[in-house]
Amino acid sequence: MEKFFYPQSVAVVGVSENPANLAKGIVGNLLAAGYRGKIYPVGPRGGAIHGIPILTHLHQLPETVDLAVILTPARFVPQVVADCGQMGISHVVVESGGFAELGEQGRALEDEIRELIRRFGIRLVGPNGIGTLNMEVGLSLPFSQLTPPRLGRISVISQSGGVGLHMLAWLDREGLGVNKFLSLGNKLDVTENEVLEYFLADPGTDAVYLYLEGLTDGRRLLEVARGARKPIYLQLANVGEETQAIALSHTASLASDERVVEAACRQAGILRLKSQAEVVVAAKMVSQPPVRGDRVVVLSRSGGEAVIAAFACRQWGFRLPPLRPHLADFIHESSRSKIIKTTNPVDLGDIFDFSVYSQVMRELCQDPDVDAVLLNYGPVYDPEREDARRMVRTMIQEARAAGKPLAITVCATLEEEDYLREELRFPVYHFPGEAIRGLAYSRYFTRRPAPPQEFIPRCQWERVVAVLGEPGPEGFLPLPAALELISSLGIPVAGWQVATTGYEALVAAGDLGYPVCMKLAAPSLVHKTEAGGVLLNLATQEEVTRGFQRLAEAAGQHVPPGEAWQVLVMPQVEGGEEVILGARRDPNFGPVVVFGAGGIWTEVLEDLALRVAPIDPAEARTMILETRMGRIISGIRGRPPADLDFLSRALATLSCFMVQFPQVQEVDLNPVRVFPGAKGILTLDARVRLG
Amino acid sequence: MEKFFYPQSVAVVGVSENPANLAKGIVGNLLAAGYRGKIYPVGPRGGAIHGIPILTHLHQLPETVDLAVILTPARFVPQVVADCGQMGISHVVVESGGFAELGEQGRALEDEIRELIRRFGIRLVGPNGIGTLNMEVGLSLPFSQLTPPRLGRISVISQSGGVGLHMLAWLDREGLGVNKFLSLGNKLDVTENEVLEYFLADPGTDAVYLYLEGLTDGRRLLEVARGARKPIYLQLANVGEETQAIALSHTASLASDERVVEAACRQAGILRLKSQAEVVVAAKMVSQPPVRGDRVVVLSRSGGEAVIAAFACRQWGFRLPPLRPHLADFIHESSRSKIIKTTNPVDLGDIFDFSVYSQVMRELCQDPDVDAVLLNYGPVYDPEREDARRMVRTMIQEARAAGKPLAITVCATLEEEDYLREELRFPVYHFPGEAIRGLAYSRYFTRRPAPPQEFIPRCQWERVVAVLGEPGPEGFLPLPAALELISSLGIPVAGWQVATTGYEALVAAGDLGYPVCMKLAAPSLVHKTEAGGVLLNLATQEEVTRGFQRLAEAAGQHVPPGEAWQVLVMPQVEGGEEVILGARRDPNFGPVVVFGAGGIWTEVLEDLALRVAPIDPAEARTMILETRMGRIISGIRGRPPADLDFLSRALATLSCFMVQFPQVQEVDLNPVRVFPGAKGILTLDARVRLG
Repeated sequence: MEKFFYPQSVAVVGVSENPANLAKGIVGNLLAAGYRGKIYPVGPRGGAIHGIPILTHLHQLPETVDLAVILTPARFVPQVVADCGQMGISHVVVESGGFAELGEQGRALEDEIRELIRRFGIRLVGPNGIGTLNMEVGLSLPFSQLTPPRLGRISVISQSGGVGLHMLAWLDREGLGVNKFLSLGNKLDVTENEVLEYFLADPGTDAVYLYLEGLTDGRRLLEVARGARKPIYLQLANVGEETQAIALSHTASLASDERVVEAACRQAGILRLKSQAEVVVAAKMVSQPPVRGDRVVVLSRSGGEAVIAAFACRQWGFRLPPLRPHLADFIHESSRSKIIKTTNPVDLGDIFDFSVYSQVMRELCQDPDVDAVLLNYGPVYDPEREDARRMVRTMIQEARAAGKPLAITVCATLEEEDYLREELRFPVYHFPGEAIRGLAYSRYFTRRPAPPQEFIPRCQWERVVAVLGEPGPEGFLPLPAALELISSLGIPVAGWQVATTGYEALVAAGDLGYPVCMKLAAPSLVHKTEAGGVLLNLATQEEVTRGFQRLAEAAGQHVPPGEAWQVLVMPQVEGGEEVILGARRDPNFGPVVVFGAGGIWTEVLEDLALRVAPIDPAEARTMILETRMGRIISGIRGRPPADLDFLSRALATLSCFMVQFPQVQEVDLNPVRVFPGAKGILTLDARVRLG
Repeated sequence: MEKFFYPQSVAVVGVSENPANLAKGIVGNLLAAGYRGKIYPVGPRGGAIHGIPILTHLHQLPETVDLAVILTPARFVPQVVADCGQMGISHVVVESGGFAELGEQGRALEDEIRELIRRFGIRLVGPNGIGTLNMEVGLSLPFSQLTPPRLGRISVISQSGGVGLHMLAWLDREGLGVNKFLSLGNKLDVTENEVLEYFLADPGTDAVYLYLEGLTDGRRLLEVARGARKPIYLQLANVGEETQAIALSHTASLASDERVVEAACRQAGILRLKSQAEVVVAAKMVSQPPVRGDRVVVLSRSGGEAVIAAFACRQWGFRLPPLRPHLADFIHESSRSKIIKTTNPVDLGDIFDFSVYSQVMRELCQDPDVDAVLLNYGPVYDPEREDARRMVRTMIQEARAAGKPLAITVCATLEEEDYLREELRFPVYHFPGEAIRGLAYSRYFTRRPAPPQEFIPRCQWERVVAVLGEPGPEGFLPLPAALELISSLGIPVAGWQVATTGYEALVAAGDLGYPVCMKLAAPSLVHKTEAGGVLLNLATQEEVTRGFQRLAEAAGQHVPPGEAWQVLVMPQVEGGEEVILGARRDPNFGPVVVFGAGGIWTEVLEDLALRVAPIDPAEARTMILETRMGRIISGIRGRPPADLDFLSRALATLSCFMVQFPQVQEVDLNPVRVFPGAKGILTLDARVRLG
């Protein structure tokens, strides 16, 4: 990675004197950004650009450059890459478009390049991107004319060049600037995870913003992010069709990609932002200490802005603790009318001695019970401007020295925003609501969930392996096998027996106890209910006999001739609440587990919690209690609680099972009946699909 | 109102030559804004300001001015108002602070002024505000130095002067400007509703933004808003403590003020915005035709910004319909690579002939199946700037001529934003996500609910009136009376009988049929369950006899000696789903009704819908179906549906009852059991509180 950001020398391939030539823009940007390394324009027609001679071929290079940037028509790129390889150039950026994004022919070109970089050990950024920037050394490789952004502390990874440039422009306009930037393009070789790892280790970077339209390896992203000590902002414009996966189970149809992404980001401590505007809000807290708690003090020169700040605090879960008595007294004494309210938010509109403000800020900065300060600052009249500016400078210094997070908005006089941003290099929020949102984003990273503890589920693994051996059509395990599997995982299943004749059904029912329910089971029968293959609440021998007959008829209609079918007899279980325990494989993040309201409620309540597997029992418990159903079974209004420990271990076990057996595509235990008391759970139905 | 915005002459009272004098800022602002009427500064020390002589007393005025603006110390204000009255000045703005906001003494001053304006028939804005602006005539009355905002089409009502000025500054910076502005201050006389009505009728105003910290008369606000033909944006920073009302019923504890505000705004078609940033986003669509549907076409020069726009469309419920085939073909033919995808969003990055863009825009503007267009505009290289600007000018004209809503964002080159805003007077969105949000805000107003139809519930009104006569302690109706009331409203109640002896209880149970439940009822007994006063599922004579004894003991403990108590016997009702029908009085909006999941689910599911009363059965039905419980009882997964018509009429009836009987504070029917089929609802418990 290093040479993509700190090259001592750069060759720019594809340059000509032609006014319409794009590659010469790269040379122009390098010069405009003050790049100090060697620049070698290369292009077959020669000539000179910005006073630098254009070499007609790479072979004319006087040295092995650290980095070659290629912007030629796509069809020439493989040859240029090969030339680079032969000359020992190990790092290449390809900005040309016309590859995989345009179809078959482009894909073939990419394959060719892939083979070349493998052979020569080249690392390649792009194609179809705009290269890299590093404002520490004036490296600026986009081909389109770019006013160099100021040097900042945030680094950017963007899948889209256009979005990347747009964000650079805004980060600059908001006074934040940028440290490093990489445009992923088609991700032929270098992908986001590797760049993210590099930025997380980079001393110049305090936070990373990723704009992505798809994930190369979501699971790896989670691993990288889990180790991070810097904020990661992810804007994932995830516009693929909703998972079309034949919605066989509730788990598949309900756990849309969006939910998996949300859950995964929360688990890894990645702040998922939905818009560019949100990224700008978050970025304004970069380079400040993180907000470690909920207690905010608002100092405001405008009463109204103080009210808006208080409203925003409530929206974002911040508290406004009362001021310490001596501080409240001091403010009261200093006010002109002596009637000023010294509650938090503090309305300082009646105090015209700015040294009071600075004194208050000093106290707050030293107070360990204050997690962040919001200052609504602004001189009201021209004559007080200089005093006000001196005050705000002091306040910023106090906060920095004390390591106290400080957000500032400016009331009314927008020129003061410019002063803070341009003169004091302090990014300023436009409105109090944005400022509080910014503090909340900062707090997010101090609330990262703990990494999962090692958890070894107690299962009968030999039986699990044996049962997984024989899936039916479409990969579904026959119902008896599915139930046995679940039972082998240590998750209780309602008693059941298999019958192939009416007589066997009667014996089973007598054995299990009335009333019973009966289900038709056959390898190719997936939609039991729709086929009339489920009968509930059979209370007498007569009903069981008649029921078996009806199921046999259903089998005649829905099971292909020659295929064996069975009838499953189960006691009719009453009472308790119905939940779902589910698992499936997400294309980005791999195995995920789901808990929520079960039975007919699953679809209507959408009361589900979701995690990327594996999870430990503690996390499973958190997950269960995130749902309303979880709170119900944990015992509300004097009801006896269910055994959440046991249920949590069952869910954690399911998550480990999914990780251990990659052939399992989906598990859907719905309903699982949960009763008060120890181990009180019973699985009543199970679907398991292998793939 | 007219004279607050179009005065021919203004007296400014409280002016002196003293550098610290605030009132002279008003004169300065009038001059800076180019006010053409007469300006008369008044102040006891005389002199001159900005070359205008200062009159030493109002009596020196050569004419009866249209408007007097007062900024003197608070204690002098009543005398100045009296002087105004004596001179026939009918409109007064008071900017002085030091009134009710500072406590008792200030409130007394306000009372004095209230009496004076009543006597003289004066209309008064303020005190403790910054007056009015009208950029049509250069009227600018704030005392703090104010760069006059440009003339725009949005008018502003602000309770806080500081927030008002801040928003004026931002509306101006974003190119929107302002038409009229009024600072409410302490609302001694003029309140928001009256100003809103005036702005809604004002030809210069296309939309109204209100910043409020409390509502003067929420119900009147709804009436005014319901008649509006212009967008109303309400930012209500509602930071009062959560309703503390002794949370006796679920309705009271769950329906927080916030929810009532949300529901009321939706009913009246007021767009509730939570932050100043959102207001700016909404305001950028002012002066454009409203977005009437969900179909958006996105034209983008950047593929990435197109993806972001598509993501935002999904977030905000917009669809991206495919282009008409001939248009898709035309774009395809015009692209350089001929490989461009002509799906919507349309990525125009590969088309360099801008006349194609204009042609496409023309077609879209004429297409009745396109509800709005988003253009991500931006020249990529300096040389194409002039062509690009010509193109965007044409596009804006096309859209205006065709009455098609158009939002524009600029890719990367922020100077183009300035060009659009300053040269073309077209407010530009900073990011595609904001633009789509702006379109959604515009669409909001075309989706206003229909005004309620007249609905005359069929009730036994004489019985209702009779029952309401005798509330118990704390205003609660005794349980038998409450049940009779509900029954008289035409809402079915489970059969019940009253027993005062064990023998009567046995007779009642025999009559109603086993199993039964029994409830202790006494005027002062509000919390039945907590007092052990509810027994369920009594299946035998023995259980009933023993039950009565237990209730009698409970009565001994919890009912004051001498107070009569009774036992209510009801059949134990099984099956169906439990819902809540509730109503209460909101301090801002008056009577509201609630529907949701009942029983133990009310608190856990928070599955409630809420409306300001009265509502008609159609709206009640919409409300029911907003909840998950409503969708469950409407028949999901093949379950037979409940009689929603009957339930809707019951809810509408409850809403009319609340309007008709203002003494009723709360009604809480919980649970109401809902069964499939005609009129299948049964009220099982009722609380009614009068006040």
